[in-house]
Amino acid sequence: MFFDLKHTDVNSKARAGVLNTDHGSIETPIFMPVGTQGTVKALSPRDLKEVNASIILGNTYHLYMRPGHRLIEKMGGLHRFMGWDRAILTDSGGFQVFSLKELRKIDDEGILFQSHLDGSYHKFTPQLVLEIQRSLGSDIMMVLDECPPYPSTRDYALKSNQLTIDWARQAREIFSGWQPLYGHRQWLFAIVQGGTFKDIREQSARALMELDFPGYAIGGLAVGEPKDEMFDITDFCTEILPEQKPRYLMGVGMPDDILEAIERGVDMFDCVIPTRNARNGTVFTTEGKMVLKSARFKEDTKPVDANCQCYTCKNFSRAYLRHLYNANEILGLTLATIHNVHFYLWLVRQARKAILQDNYVSWKERILQKITRVVEN
Amino acid sequence: MFFDLKHTDVNSKARAGVLNTDHGSIETPIFMPVGTQGTVKALSPRDLKEVNASIILGNTYHLYMRPGHRLIEKMGGLHRFMGWDRAILTDSGGFQVFSLKELRKIDDEGILFQSHLDGSYHKFTPQLVLEIQRSLGSDIMMVLDECPPYPSTRDYALKSNQLTIDWARQAREIFSGWQPLYGHRQWLFAIVQGGTFKDIREQSARALMELDFPGYAIGGLAVGEPKDEMFDITDFCTEILPEQKPRYLMGVGMPDDILEAIERGVDMFDCVIPTRNARNGTVFTTEGKMVLKSARFKEDTKPVDANCQCYTCKNFSRAYLRHLYNANEILGLTLATIHNVHFYLWLVRQARKAILQDNYVSWKERILQKITRVVEN
Ligand SMILES: [Zn+2]
Ligand SMILES: [Zn+2]
Repeated sequence: MFFDLKHTDVNSKARAGVLNTDHGSIETPIFMPVGTQGTVKALSPRDLKEVNASIILGNTYHLYMRPGHRLIEKMGGLHRFMGWDRAILTDSGGFQVFSLKELRKIDDEGILFQSHLDGSYHKFTPQLVLEIQRSLGSDIMMVLDECPPYPSTRDYALKSNQLTIDWARQAREIFSGWQPLYGHRQWLFAIVQGGTFKDIREQSARALMELDFPGYAIGGLAVGEPKDEMFDITDFCTEILPEQKPRYLMGVGMPDDILEAIERGVDMFDCVIPTRNARNGTVFTTEGKMVLKSARFKEDTKPVDANCQCYTCKNFSRAYLRHLYNANEILGLTLATIHNVHFYLWLVRQARKAILQDNYVSWKERILQKITRVVEN
Repeated sequence: MFFDLKHTDVNSKARAGVLNTDHGSIETPIFMPVGTQGTVKALSPRDLKEVNASIILGNTYHLYMRPGHRLIEKMGGLHRFMGWDRAILTDSGGFQVFSLKELRKIDDEGILFQSHLDGSYHKFTPQLVLEIQRSLGSDIMMVLDECPPYPSTRDYALKSNQLTIDWARQAREIFSGWQPLYGHRQWLFAIVQGGTFKDIREQSARALMELDFPGYAIGGLAVGEPKDEMFDITDFCTEILPEQKPRYLMGVGMPDDILEAIERGVDMFDCVIPTRNARNGTVFTTEGKMVLKSARFKEDTKPVDANCQCYTCKNFSRAYLRHLYNANEILGLTLATIHNVHFYLWLVRQARKAILQDNYVSWKERILQKITRVVEN
């Protein structure tokens, strides 16, 4: 079985499960570090294993642009190319294209856009993004979707949603005729859209459920809407989505957002926050968020997080990390990224434990009090 | 015994020895990766151990400027601050100050200069640079020297040399009254100067030898003079310097330079070339030098160096490294630095083996034919 739902918390919708891929089993809830360009920024594959990453995310749009999926196919697929033998999920590229400032034209067939690298024209169709992801050889692939901006008119959201459903149907059909390229299995997830309109979300979810995908993402959130609306829509979607299929909330988020979404029945997450913030010198800890450059850490011999077992916290002081940031040393970026990704993966493991012990909500409230503090600057 | 000369090649002046420090024994000839600001750029301490680094170099000037030796002393010394429990050599800061473009004024007492960071005024004296290095807690410290530029007049070189000798005498005296700060022993090396004037070099070496330092550096080379002159002066200095003391050729150099200097009786080296070149995408291999960004590696599934046992070569292709450089990914810098430093340390280990087998010169000629090739771009 691809997804094995082990347990649901008695006091909430929080779930503990296992995703079984040919590149290892993944305990859920899970956080997927983002490896945009064939590397999780500043980390090596062995760093990733050491921080307990079981699955990472690759960006179809970026890898298509550079170095190109054909090259990666020649190199034996993304796993071999980047030296990563655990699981990979690739997104559809839809969200990246949605974010492009350059010309972007959507029609029934797909999305025409200009490369952020050289301005060249490309068109993502449901078939092309599948072909790219087949060449990449990701364990979990996503169908092409159209992400309505926030806010959108009801009309736009309706029309956009129809497109996403049509594309999902096409993708399902194309994919069903394919053999895997590298011997390992690939799973295709659909993406529920519909903006902040509940009836459109429901329409989206039900239409995609009819097509019977092995997993469902909730897309189009964390694009500017208020947080309570994001959680409300998430909660609404997980009410509809099938219990026995994994649910993936795309692009979310801060540690507290992830914990709130887990409570609402989400199993999978990805976000650039832990890696990007690390590179900006911001770390997440069990004592709250810290800006490492702050003068208050100048003579601080304590580790970033005394409760953390990562390489960074076991070997280096806040004062040393602060110095590395001030001196623009690459090692600072790597050490902070190791810590932040380790922290995120520690957090979801703790969440899973609490779920299995049926005390998710009280655990969440206790841990949120700690991790949402901001250490004074 | 601090330095144990094990063997000298029968056909050349190449030597195999052991430097015994309280942070481990160092087999010579040795290459010291440069850790300018309390980190060897792009490498963690565990990366350094994995590539077999037994001693690294720290820059007194840079650490004095940022984060400051007082802070490092509060943090328990440089070893603890940067999480490195093997040996450290710190330079005197003289060469960095020599390289400063800003105002620099030399008198009998020391060198007045302006910080490259904020333009503030500082004066390095023989005593201050010793105090800084005592706070840092390096295993090997260097006396303050004045490095005459190339070319220099004979007059300038003579006067400068007298200064360096005076400063060495002062340093020797001050140091002899000190107890180590952290419990481990510190050794103080002197620096032979004299530009390209052999008689001044001899005068320098003999004066410093009278002061009986545990080791001698050859300074003021690789500052623009022709290569044959550099080797000639090196050869001349090692003729004079005591056999039972280690000799350190500062700031040299390319792999072939190091092998030529080993043949002339040098035991210790440092240079930014392997780390800096790695960050520019240039790697040294047993097949020659390669520019990783080159289009010829686009689809090259081979490792950087098929004969290399480093993490990079055991796990990644040239095509992947090329992609990382093109995509400006930090991991590319780290992987190339791991390889280059591993290569330099592999090279000096091979040199040592050849010395112990009394076939250094023929080994050197064979290996130079391979490593000095430039792989076509
Ligand atoms: Zn940590
Ligand atoms: Zn290598």
